[in-house]
Amino acid sequence: MKAVSILGSTGSIGCNTLKVVEFLREFRVVALGAGKNTEKLAEQILKFKPELVAVENETCAEDLLRRISKFKSQIPKIVVAEKGLIEVATCEEAEIVVSATVGAIGFVPTLRALEAGKRVALANKETLVMAGELMTKTARENGAEILPVDSEHNAIHQCLRGEKRAEVKRLILTASGGPFRTKSKQEIENATRAEALNHPKWKMGNKITIDSATLMNKGLEVIEAHWLFGFSENKIDILVHPESIVHSLIEMVDGSIIAQMGATDMRHAIQYALTYPNRKPCEIAPLDLAKLSQLNFEEPDLDKFPCLALAYCALKTGGTMPAAMNAANEVAVQAFLDDKIRLSEIPKIIEGVMNEHETKPAESLEVILDSDKRARLKANKFLNKKSAVGKFE
Amino acid sequence: MKAVSILGSTGSIGCNTLKVVEFLREFRVVALGAGKNTEKLAEQILKFKPELVAVENETCAEDLLRRISKFKSQIPKIVVAEKGLIEVATCEEAEIVVSATVGAIGFVPTLRALEAGKRVALANKETLVMAGELMTKTARENGAEILPVDSEHNAIHQCLRGEKRAEVKRLILTASGGPFRTKSKQEIENATRAEALNHPKWKMGNKITIDSATLMNKGLEVIEAHWLFGFSENKIDILVHPESIVHSLIEMVDGSIIAQMGATDMRHAIQYALTYPNRKPCEIAPLDLAKLSQLNFEEPDLDKFPCLALAYCALKTGGTMPAAMNAANEVAVQAFLDDKIRLSEIPKIIEGVMNEHETKPAESLEVILDSDKRARLKANKFLNKKSAVGKFE
Repeated sequence: MKAVSILGSTGSIGCNTLKVVEFLREFRVVALGAGKNTEKLAEQILKFKPELVAVENETCAEDLLRRISKFKSQIPKIVVAEKGLIEVATCEEAEIVVSATVGAIGFVPTLRALEAGKRVALANKETLVMAGELMTKTARENGAEILPVDSEHNAIHQCLRGEKRAEVKRLILTASGGPFRTKSKQEIENATRAEALNHPKWKMGNKITIDSATLMNKGLEVIEAHWLFGFSENKIDILVHPESIVHSLIEMVDGSIIAQMGATDMRHAIQYALTYPNRKPCEIAPLDLAKLSQLNFEEPDLDKFPCLALAYCALKTGGTMPAAMNAANEVAVQAFLDDKIRLSEIPKIIEGVMNEHETKPAESLEVILDSDKRARLKANKFLNKKSAVGKFE
Repeated sequence: MKAVSILGSTGSIGCNTLKVVEFLREFRVVALGAGKNTEKLAEQILKFKPELVAVENETCAEDLLRRISKFKSQIPKIVVAEKGLIEVATCEEAEIVVSATVGAIGFVPTLRALEAGKRVALANKETLVMAGELMTKTARENGAEILPVDSEHNAIHQCLRGEKRAEVKRLILTASGGPFRTKSKQEIENATRAEALNHPKWKMGNKITIDSATLMNKGLEVIEAHWLFGFSENKIDILVHPESIVHSLIEMVDGSIIAQMGATDMRHAIQYALTYPNRKPCEIAPLDLAKLSQLNFEEPDLDKFPCLALAYCALKTGGTMPAAMNAANEVAVQAFLDDKIRLSEIPKIIEGVMNEHETKPAESLEVILDSDKRARLKANKFLNKKSAVGKFE
């Protein structure tokens, strides 16, 4: 039984990882890192009996302890905050670390897991966006592996299995187009929180669902793909595919296109990342293409979704620019979720932060975290300005 | 420069092979085998300067010599009939033999090429249908390779590149559905020769175009796939896909589907078979999925296309049954092309022959050729009966 540790166990990817573990019966859970959801974490502890769990702070730790103290089985060691998450990520027994926290919080723990030579099943895309160079270099130097859990990158990973990198002409990431694909620019302008959270295909966390609505999610994935697979931004394209059945494709130099398809269930990609290089039978009903009947494809609309162009621009600029863009996006998305700004103001905040960002080589943790911090401050400054004068610009 | 020899050089696949050779500039043509089309063969000789050419008979040889005697360059050695084709197939210099004759005539020459340890780029599907066991055994024993040129099998070959066979759940061969996909049983009953030859997607020879109209082509491909990839008939499925963009797919045990797509141009598959395991830039414009916009899929209709069920039945029966089915089909298709029978009578003749065929293990060339001969006689008996009494049944 291979030992698995999960960062972000109570989130969407975390819960699905536990479902996969439960189904496969060939992994055991040794450590779980969560945030504030002690109720769900307590259930997970009862079922999977980890030796170590991390929560957001001391209050959560006390709350968790109260919930689990009645369990007859062994009480796990409880650790807190980033330090706690790092302990979960580097837990000696764990061979595979599933990195599935949302946002920048997973950054340092994931880096530590790579330093410890673990296989990292990576769902936290901000990690590669912020520090792709550092992460991939750390993985190489420590014999660690990064297996992507994002369905698109997981698909690319599958498509590339038998291919020589030099013979790959371009990567084609598919995008569902989000809830506003068929909407006008005006409708997107006035979109409500509920509309933006109503993703047509994937059931995910709030942050990534908003990123899907603005297509920033796809932008982050372009940057992620760059670091995972080593292709420059002009060799990574986006294809809108509303059915989300073709998870992504690669085009070879001879014009052949290899595509990976599957049901829209994250357990596929999670299981692949856990079992690679092997494949195991899966719990999910197989695709029935005849029943699906039709797959559609279209070009992305860069005018309606300016976040996409911002992400390409950040990747091309390089250095700390993607980290700054990511930080500004996190602040802006949270502001939208808190009903402080409109959806169309998200790219405006990001663009404002990027315009003022002084790009440096992303060579160390300190430089990256400093860019992240400065970008957040700047984004908040934009927000405060808006709340003071009632509009963003 | 790798040396290539082509069986069936004046046919559709043969001509496309020469286009690929001309484009790639890394192969040279050492031998060409053709039938009666001495005009085209003469052009090919002038351009590609082979050392050896085969034609159908002495009359064709004389005709060819008259055409090429005026050429300043060296006149190739001219050989005739099956013996001549075998000489082309086993020509010592040739490293790759493209087997692209239509029907059973390519059978023995292809077997000889495999005995000689060549890489065979196989477009002659009847070869594997008649003698899949013998062919694949011969290839194994002589270190020969079989690279499929059929777009479907070529696609499966590409999809399988990075995968373990034991982890493949099933192969899914796509079928355009042919010109009668949306037609009623009655309309198919009364289809004319011209209608049947009007394939919606692929420009091919007459025999294979009729096989596409009856879906026997897909049936032959199921048998071919069995021998090429070692899957039993219950693990090879057919999916109708009118656009013929997805050339075929594989489903893995974990539910992941890997698909290969490309333009509907045979040069893709031919080039792949020539350059494998490498891929080279190709002359054909790349696919634009956004422009294609839509891909459709549906189940095949076994009631409208009984040839499909006959092929599955032949594969399941095994031994010499596929050879008998193939022979009956060749006779019946020729009769249809000669306006002697209706399209719907093709499966009836095949079924009649199969019902009376005495299946034996397909262990030797003699047994297989004997089954082929007997099935042809039987099929002709059915035809004569029809022409005598004015109807088939």
